Amino acid sequence: MKIAVLGTGNVGDTIGYKLVELGHEVMMGSRTLNNEKALSFVAKCNEKASNGTFADAASFGEIIINCTKGEVSIDALKLAGNALNGKILIDIANPLDFSNGMPPSLIPALSNTNSLGEEIQKTFPNAKVVKTLNTMWCGLMVNPILIGNGEHVNYISGNDADAKNKVISLLNEFGWKNEFILDLGDLTAARATEAVLPIWLRVYGATKNGAFNFKIIN
Amino acid sequence: MKIAVLGTGNVGDTIGYKLVELGHEVMMGSRTLNNEKALSFVAKCNEKASNGTFADAASFGEIIINCTKGEVSIDALKLAGNALNGKILIDIANPLDFSNGMPPSLIPALSNTNSLGEEIQKTFPNAKVVKTLNTMWCGLMVNPILIGNGEHVNYISGNDADAKNKVISLLNEFGWKNEFILDLGDLTAARATEAVLPIWLRVYGATKNGAFNFKIIN
Repeated sequence: MKIAVLGTGNVGDTIGYKLVELGHEVMMGSRTLNNEKALSFVAKCNEKASNGTFADAASFGEIIINCTKGEVSIDALKLAGNALNGKILIDIANPLDFSNGMPPSLIPALSNTNSLGEEIQKTFPNAKVVKTLNTMWCGLMVNPILIGNGEHVNYISGNDADAKNKVISLLNEFGWKNEFILDLGDLTAARATEAVLPIWLRVYGATKNGAFNFKIIN
Repeated sequence: MKIAVLGTGNVGDTIGYKLVELGHEVMMGSRTLNNEKALSFVAKCNEKASNGTFADAASFGEIIINCTKGEVSIDALKLAGNALNGKILIDIANPLDFSNGMPPSLIPALSNTNSLGEEIQKTFPNAKVVKTLNTMWCGLMVNPILIGNGEHVNYISGNDADAKNKVISLLNEFGWKNEFILDLGDLTAARATEAVLPIWLRVYGATKNGAFNFKIIN
């Protein structure tokens, strides 16, 4: 499948490598064509990887994955603009606010009664936004088996059932078993999954180990 | 030990019964002396249980447990006033905001860069506020063994190490093993544990089962 990875940070890199490893064609999108991190990503991959602007990548991908920092996601996605129309847009970013020191809080306008996922959907009503994978370290996103036999939770939410099903198939390729993918319903659930970050950050601070996730015990 | 349970709802009832069962002397506090739920609680318990006003109960207890609804906690605690001074105040309430429909969001002024726990500490600087147990259904608070062999997480935070240790002893009496009590540090961590509620409520909404908790897998 042709997949766009928007963002050149650790998350974009990790997702991108995994997708290439799985045999997908990946275009990494960034603000500028000569982004060093994107070029470095392409150089380390086989011929299935390429890079381009956000607009190039969004045009290329059947699925688009937002791996940009939450605070700049809307602006970055605006550079892709109409290329998002009709596409599945997987949002794995979080609206972290670093302006109040560490650990970060959430951007007030994008939390509690709103979320980054919903704001992206409102800004790009013709994209099919699916929120998932945003509640853990990126190493686990693409390799859940790394801990606890892969038996820990990954939430998914979105307004389009078919889009969610296609994303679930991709999650399965990453190693997520269906019984550990919890569908929370429509995209308002992104308010809750993005609000996992505060406790995630505190647990990380207390344990000094980011390779953890939550399992639902019942 | 003499323990005050402030609040006559399900949480106060559940905590109160367990404390009496464990052999503690419990005074349930409410706004008025003739509160029907408090009288009903006392009637169902042995002679170790009594009831009184918030001030009566706070004066009585060596440890005070805030089981009032988060939206009224500060006002309720003000009725106890100076009786809180020097006491350990266990805060298990959450600042839920029902004004935007269901599921509730968090009260904006008591979330993200603030918390109910911190607001209580600021309002009553001579109390030793310890935040714990607020991230789960009350049935699990006092009976963690009900699910997963008791192997799921209960967070604790507070500014007074000695107070936290005393609360941990009480948690041990409830059945919490130390390895599943995670100390997140000072009371600013209440911002994170109170922010567990949004995801708790969504998981509950998706699974229709409140008898669950999160386990940290690493």
